Amino acid sequence: MLLRMSSLFLRTLRDDPADAEVPSHKLLVRAGYVRRVAPGIYSWLPLGKMVLENVTRVVREEMDRMGAQEVLFPALLPREYYEATGRWTEYGDTLFRLQDRKGADYLLGPTHEEMFTGMVKGELSSYKDFPVTLYQIQTKYRDEARPRAGILRGREFVMKDSYSFDLDDDGLKRSYEQHREAYIRIFDRLGIDYKICFAMSGAMGGSASEEFLAPTPTGEDTFVACHTCGYAANAEAVTTPAPPAVTAEHPPLQVLDTPDTPTIETLVAHVNEHFGLGVTAADTLKNIVVKVRTPGSDKTEVLVIGVPGDREVDFKRLEAALAPGVPEIFEAADFERHPGLVRGYIGPQVLKDLGITYLVDPRVVTGTSWVTGANEPGKHAANVVAGRDFVPDGTIEAAEVRAGDSCPRCGSALSIDRGIEIGHIFQLGRKYADAAELDALGPDGKPIRVTMGSYGIGVSRAVAVIAEQRHDELGLVWPREVAPADVHIVGTGKDNQIEVALDLAAKLEAMGLRVLVDDRPGVSPGVKFKDSELLGMPTVVVIGRGLAQGVAELRDRAAGTKEEIPLAEAPALVAAACGVTAA
Amino acid sequence: MLLRMSSLFLRTLRDDPADAEVPSHKLLVRAGYVRRVAPGIYSWLPLGKMVLENVTRVVREEMDRMGAQEVLFPALLPREYYEATGRWTEYGDTLFRLQDRKGADYLLGPTHEEMFTGMVKGELSSYKDFPVTLYQIQTKYRDEARPRAGILRGREFVMKDSYSFDLDDDGLKRSYEQHREAYIRIFDRLGIDYKICFAMSGAMGGSASEEFLAPTPTGEDTFVACHTCGYAANAEAVTTPAPPAVTAEHPPLQVLDTPDTPTIETLVAHVNEHFGLGVTAADTLKNIVVKVRTPGSDKTEVLVIGVPGDREVDFKRLEAALAPGVPEIFEAADFERHPGLVRGYIGPQVLKDLGITYLVDPRVVTGTSWVTGANEPGKHAANVVAGRDFVPDGTIEAAEVRAGDSCPRCGSALSIDRGIEIGHIFQLGRKYADAAELDALGPDGKPIRVTMGSYGIGVSRAVAVIAEQRHDELGLVWPREVAPADVHIVGTGKDNQIEVALDLAAKLEAMGLRVLVDDRPGVSPGVKFKDSELLGMPTVVVIGRGLAQGVAELRDRAAGTKEEIPLAEAPALVAAACGVTAA
Repeated sequence: MLLRMSSLFLRTLRDDPADAEVPSHKLLVRAGYVRRVAPGIYSWLPLGKMVLENVTRVVREEMDRMGAQEVLFPALLPREYYEATGRWTEYGDTLFRLQDRKGADYLLGPTHEEMFTGMVKGELSSYKDFPVTLYQIQTKYRDEARPRAGILRGREFVMKDSYSFDLDDDGLKRSYEQHREAYIRIFDRLGIDYKICFAMSGAMGGSASEEFLAPTPTGEDTFVACHTCGYAANAEAVTTPAPPAVTAEHPPLQVLDTPDTPTIETLVAHVNEHFGLGVTAADTLKNIVVKVRTPGSDKTEVLVIGVPGDREVDFKRLEAALAPGVPEIFEAADFERHPGLVRGYIGPQVLKDLGITYLVDPRVVTGTSWVTGANEPGKHAANVVAGRDFVPDGTIEAAEVRAGDSCPRCGSALSIDRGIEIGHIFQLGRKYADAAELDALGPDGKPIRVTMGSYGIGVSRAVAVIAEQRHDELGLVWPREVAPADVHIVGTGKDNQIEVALDLAAKLEAMGLRVLVDDRPGVSPGVKFKDSELLGMPTVVVIGRGLAQGVAELRDRAAGTKEEIPLAEAPALVAAACGVTAA
Repeated sequence: MLLRMSSLFLRTLRDDPADAEVPSHKLLVRAGYVRRVAPGIYSWLPLGKMVLENVTRVVREEMDRMGAQEVLFPALLPREYYEATGRWTEYGDTLFRLQDRKGADYLLGPTHEEMFTGMVKGELSSYKDFPVTLYQIQTKYRDEARPRAGILRGREFVMKDSYSFDLDDDGLKRSYEQHREAYIRIFDRLGIDYKICFAMSGAMGGSASEEFLAPTPTGEDTFVACHTCGYAANAEAVTTPAPPAVTAEHPPLQVLDTPDTPTIETLVAHVNEHFGLGVTAADTLKNIVVKVRTPGSDKTEVLVIGVPGDREVDFKRLEAALAPGVPEIFEAADFERHPGLVRGYIGPQVLKDLGITYLVDPRVVTGTSWVTGANEPGKHAANVVAGRDFVPDGTIEAAEVRAGDSCPRCGSALSIDRGIEIGHIFQLGRKYADAAELDALGPDGKPIRVTMGSYGIGVSRAVAVIAEQRHDELGLVWPREVAPADVHIVGTGKDNQIEVALDLAAKLEAMGLRVLVDDRPGVSPGVKFKDSELLGMPTVVVIGRGLAQGVAELRDRAAGTKEEIPLAEAPALVAAACGVTAA
């Protein structure tokens, strides 16, 4: 279907939309691909719909290729399904809730774990029916507090979500691995630059999990990357390489008077000035008390966490490390109930006697010596040696990760980068199968609890991510697989330039290329060139001044190169530039 | 992608679902194509999703072919767009309304007139930009009071809606005609049997309008059809052929005492018994008083309507005839305000003097003589002649249409049939353009008000309609274009029958056919045959007992025929049966 600019429903804009902050948002609006309807809610114009459809096609092809079967759930869902798993309330304000004319409660599906699980339970019963992987490409709804960045984080968006159902952990691992490979093929085909990051399972309650993050300067997510060995992880998933244990002899523990030292800085300054210790913040051991609540109950356990004094506790890392337990602040009233814990002066020396669990940062290895609290108001202790003066109950990854920290795989310096989550693969395990009592009848007639994987791709988001990664100051630069057209032919308008452009367009289309042709009469060449750069087709052909000499100009949008080609050979040469060989 | 029953996510059911009333609902559930989630809300299983996708593809191809451009609007829409046209309230309980976390009002789009109009207004400004036709294939929401019949009338459903934007009435007619032709191609390709029915524009406020109705015994809509000339129309749109005027002399008007004749039946009996008139109900003239309200105001006008006494007034026809005016019941209090109108005894003789408009059924032509009210309690009049004793102000199509009435085109007897609306094309005119002030700047610099057409196809409903029209007592009978597969190969399971079936499947797939193969081990031939009939692929091949003799069985699902074919020639013969010639 030849796309003619003279009739294409398209208006390009000179100015960035007032509410746009990131390049993809500015460009997709300026180039007439999307339009805002409400915060986080967008319409797709013809060129945008084509890109969305191309992305959808790639995702569908690769999901089909891995043997996943496509289904389609409704977006409007009755409360009962989400009530059973507690998510009707857990989702909080993020869930769009509504009532029908009879007053029955409904929601707009933010994710469909419950529905997939229920569908499999409804259809399958025998171990012979497994494994099975189902997917859908469907519109989802989340009432984000701050919808931003155009279609990067919308409130109505298109997702591919899939679920694998296996009878054992090995099966789940295979399904997970198949998805991982399919995702690699998908994002490669979409021309997205991505990192596969280790991710903690977090609140979803499973085990292995990886995120596909697209590095962009404007990304909402931060991740940790090693540019030497390629290691990448969420901050929550980064592991700290433990230094070797220290065998040196240390002087005995020494209690120091440290009045007016409420912070690590004041403590370090005080002990260096008054006791000549010559320590830094990294030599101090900061002890944080938290309560850990068992989800679904009011039971809490007291926990002390020790991290080097130069690092903050990263609450997200702490949450991930304690999951499914939920950390809560240890408040003044809690301290009153535990007089052994002297606020501001806690040292690990007394924790064993108090019966309180003590977890330390992996850097706190046996034989290391620390300045820490002395468990008396106004007093700290020096030469507090791990393994001698206290023995931790284990380690915990709760300290903040910083650029320059050692890569857990190769030891090089890590960097902290920004990115956008475009995919997530996740060994969910039996959480939803347990909730739904999803069993297969085994060969011995006994039930086998099914284990699940959960896998998502942000389909509409991927369009924005590609725009975010593939643009320059002139406009969009689409990879061929997702571009609305392979080639954009600009007929500049004098003499018979437009007729020749249309003729070339017809020839290229007959060769199987998707063609956009600028056949607008009375529009200046400058405007047409600007539009061709803004719209971003991978190959541009100009039928302009050279026509009299029988030449056209062939431009590569991404490389920024231009060359003159003989018009007679244009069909073959343009097709070749688009990767198509003439029959 | 070979579909193998051994791994296909499918469970067929022996029994009809308890809530199913119509064949398509029963069969689509039993054959594992759809599953109910909530009233009027369904999930699509893999085979169902394929049919839905096939229907979508046909619709998209034909819309693209006619030059319509595809866009995509959100389903979640802010109130403001629908407030401007009054439909936020007009839609009543049918509209799903909700609020976001900030308390802002939203709705789930039941139809998108406002959005399309707004989009065109936002993008286009010059007369050169027109005409343009936009469409989308998108999920819509209507909170039907009685969702029924599975996906025939859902609360969440897929629609193709399109709108044409033209600068003048001729352009609108062309756009309308193009849609009409595209719809004919679409429904022909989908294998749907349909009638194109004249339809009144009704509440939408435009002019020409036709509905595509699929005749089915279980249809919710009734329509009038002439099986002689092919005329078809909504009851609202049927016109009554006027008989020729009567020139015979009639005796003078005669007032009759008619006590205790509250109904036409008692009146007819009374006048025949006491005055020997020998009339039937069709010779009496029944006069109905209504108030007609101007929409958006409280102003009403009194109107009397005269119809032959053997017919009821059809309120839907009356509404359509009076639109945009809204008929309202003339109540007791209204009669008190109009003492000239004697309830139960109204005759048209006095209406001119009372200054009340009188409209009659087209059968009430000049010279016809009637028994009607004498405008006094307990009295009627005979020999009341149209044109002599009263002169109507015009005619109105308000009387019920009955089977056997004359076709307005050819005069044959009409039948009243049932059907399901699958498409609607409609010359909307300037209603929404006026509301949005949608103008194009003309060549003379003056604004031209745009005129619109509105066109819809129920995409998910079409799946059910095909099932409703194409099934037998054994199961579904899909037309090839929408079937999940061209051919269903049944390997019955003994010896190497399944291997041979898989081998044939691979060969057919390589020839471009879509193949479903029943390779389930340990399932009886009887169950496999039953499933193949229920699932409804157009061509079935059985690799069974004949294998030893080198023959397979080729079945045509629709024709119910079976023939033995040599296995060696099976690929070419099966492909030919599927309409594909071997290369």
